[in-house]
Amino acid sequence: MSSPLARLPAEIVTTDPDVLESHARDNAPLCAHGTAAALLRPTSTAQVAAVLELASRHAIPVVPQGARSGLAGAANAVDGCWLLSLERMNAVLEVDPVDRIAVVQPGVLNARLSRAVAERGMFYPPDPSSWEFSTLGGNVATNAGGLCCVKYGVTADFVRGLEVVLADGRVLRTGRRTAKGVAGYDLTRLFCGSEGTLGVITEITLALRPAAREPLTAIAFFPGTAAACATVTACMASGVVPSMLELMDRPSMDIVRGYRDLGFPPDAGAMLIVQSDSGPPASADLARFAEIAQSHGGETVVADDPSESRLLLEARRSVGPATELLGAYLSDDVCVPLGRLVDLVDGVEKIAAEHSVLITCTGHAGDGNMHPTVVFDPRDATQVHRAERAFDAVMELGLALGGTITGEHGIGLLKAAWLEKELGPVSLAVHRDMKALFDPAGILNPGKVVRSRAARP
Amino acid sequence: MSSPLARLPAEIVTTDPDVLESHARDNAPLCAHGTAAALLRPTSTAQVAAVLELASRHAIPVVPQGARSGLAGAANAVDGCWLLSLERMNAVLEVDPVDRIAVVQPGVLNARLSRAVAERGMFYPPDPSSWEFSTLGGNVATNAGGLCCVKYGVTADFVRGLEVVLADGRVLRTGRRTAKGVAGYDLTRLFCGSEGTLGVITEITLALRPAAREPLTAIAFFPGTAAACATVTACMASGVVPSMLELMDRPSMDIVRGYRDLGFPPDAGAMLIVQSDSGPPASADLARFAEIAQSHGGETVVADDPSESRLLLEARRSVGPATELLGAYLSDDVCVPLGRLVDLVDGVEKIAAEHSVLITCTGHAGDGNMHPTVVFDPRDATQVHRAERAFDAVMELGLALGGTITGEHGIGLLKAAWLEKELGPVSLAVHRDMKALFDPAGILNPGKVVRSRAARP
Repeated sequence: MSSPLARLPAEIVTTDPDVLESHARDNAPLCAHGTAAALLRPTSTAQVAAVLELASRHAIPVVPQGARSGLAGAANAVDGCWLLSLERMNAVLEVDPVDRIAVVQPGVLNARLSRAVAERGMFYPPDPSSWEFSTLGGNVATNAGGLCCVKYGVTADFVRGLEVVLADGRVLRTGRRTAKGVAGYDLTRLFCGSEGTLGVITEITLALRPAAREPLTAIAFFPGTAAACATVTACMASGVVPSMLELMDRPSMDIVRGYRDLGFPPDAGAMLIVQSDSGPPASADLARFAEIAQSHGGETVVADDPSESRLLLEARRSVGPATELLGAYLSDDVCVPLGRLVDLVDGVEKIAAEHSVLITCTGHAGDGNMHPTVVFDPRDATQVHRAERAFDAVMELGLALGGTITGEHGIGLLKAAWLEKELGPVSLAVHRDMKALFDPAGILNPGKVVRSRAARP
Repeated sequence: MSSPLARLPAEIVTTDPDVLESHARDNAPLCAHGTAAALLRPTSTAQVAAVLELASRHAIPVVPQGARSGLAGAANAVDGCWLLSLERMNAVLEVDPVDRIAVVQPGVLNARLSRAVAERGMFYPPDPSSWEFSTLGGNVATNAGGLCCVKYGVTADFVRGLEVVLADGRVLRTGRRTAKGVAGYDLTRLFCGSEGTLGVITEITLALRPAAREPLTAIAFFPGTAAACATVTACMASGVVPSMLELMDRPSMDIVRGYRDLGFPPDAGAMLIVQSDSGPPASADLARFAEIAQSHGGETVVADDPSESRLLLEARRSVGPATELLGAYLSDDVCVPLGRLVDLVDGVEKIAAEHSVLITCTGHAGDGNMHPTVVFDPRDATQVHRAERAFDAVMELGLALGGTITGEHGIGLLKAAWLEKELGPVSLAVHRDMKALFDPAGILNPGKVVRSRAARP
């Protein structure tokens, strides 16, 4: 054990190479990772502060980790780093049904909090697809999205305040417990989505809502993407308030067809899955959606009850497992203005053809946030190369359409070079200044999100 | 005309002392203001950039101004400053009904945009009470709240992206046009509510919603504040989604009684005014509210139609004019966790008694954000002193209840000392670092929000 590590409580330090290797990366494909010097699993804010103070003094890189379910390599080890896992800081400190807040440590799983508050008649909406196994700390650090965003917003919209350990070990409290507040700069939002590059989150105050009704579901099949996308924009402009509005293109439907028979009409070239959890008129929302879809040539099925609803949702739920079966895949996360959704979906189809790769296009259509997913054989270098080029082309298209390279998955390592392109020189300079302010020694998750000048090719 | 001013286009420069004096302050009472050297009214981002570049070079303080309707002195002149009015940058650049965004210059009045989008079937919710005469730039710079927040959130929740001129004249673009996005740090939110201390906002991309239904209104009279506050918390936990939920205490009702006869029951000691603009069941929301209010001893009136609704709203609308008639007043802006609302309202009553002053307590009860308002005679030094002490006592109480000194009005000059108390030493140090990063020469609205160490008593 190296000398700085010896100054930490032995019970939080692991240097076993097998353990380090098993914690070396998150869920992002094709992202490099290095070899960590240690895995640290503190159990208190004071221990996190001691780790960072020590790391700052000895210029040791620190990579914060939650459940390592991220999709951008933000939790990947860098050589010689300390992996700082927050998994043991997993207490739900408070759930207050009157103030409608929960105070949690970062290692609490999203599902654990969501279920705990549901049992008490409340609702924590953020639902990234990883919600069963991702941590709230990770959700905040990546500002995770999900299916609910179209109605309820993203994780950051539910974060009222944070406790953050700064690079030098000082403990910062941001935000508030109250519904509103404008005292000082919005540091809470600055840390949301900063992927462990500005500080380490050790406590989170989350806003809760009253329980929502169980949603009802409708699906609509369309001849092609144009009609589906036109239905999305018309629906979002109509006053219908969907709690979910997902699109699947033909390749997505095809891989689901190959995985299980859900009775998709053979000629359907795109589909929408919509939910509403609005008060008594959830069915009114869905009826209005069906009306709009039909006026665009859609064929609709509207669930009459929650169990039929769950059945209709299987189409969307099957995309993940169906994709898994096909081999490796690179899931993109482009978000465009709603009016350009059809250009994104059609453009992705063209990119697939140009690069001779399979790309499925599924996603949160109501937000303009799609996940074009390039499927490839990782053992075939040509396919890997093509997949990477197609992946880049999708981001290029997203930017050209006035969108962003990432709606909810984040930058990490995967998109650090692309971020520079999206930000442009002034914003990049401000990002670097911000990084230098919070992390002057460059120990916090180095190389992620904002690369130093030296790291650029 | 001094030498740096001569380098600016003559048509944007005013040095007439009368004009400068008439632009020397905003709407905050009891806030000091200095004497400006010039009033600058640029018409383009390039001109704003030229102003700031020049001001940085010559170390001239710059005080950005919108409509000067702020309540914290953030727009007050400091000696020798350039007042930088954005009023001539008042173009609505774009309203896109499909992407559901508006792009505006900062000088556009809130009411102008709100009406323009309403005519096109859309809805821009943020509704500070100044909405008829305040600018969107000022709304963003203060992160203005309003009546709608309880359902729709604050101004920042509708800001997708900004163009900001930095202290040295560089033009920064933050954020995006899309519904979601996590590319880089959330600089957009950092500028929202920063009151012109970090940069000057020159363009704003705002999210719009589909038109809401005209709201229906109900009122409930209670024997005292305990029952009213219990109704608020029960209502907010019940799943009712009010688009407005306001509380008036007995002193507020008394001053309205003195102003006009609205038929308040003589024994009522507190009242709530609630609105719902939910889909078909707005009346269901109100019926549920009435049920909850009655279970707490409330006597309720539920409007059956929009015209009766507007009539019921007169109670709340009359508080402002009734207060104006009484002389000068200091309006506070404390926000507490919902469970402490009753302690805030009762505590304010005690503070009024202790300091022998009249304090009315009206506000956005659904958010826990109240505006205890100390009424005083500005010609009577003893009354002014008492009012100031009572005003401070209200903030002290707000902090003691786990709240914040400002829910929506901001810090400006008025609460700069109190901000230091709320933030504590670590956050204050980070605020100072942030200020130094964006404004190394200290030219941007100096003395507002974050005071330099030297400025502290």
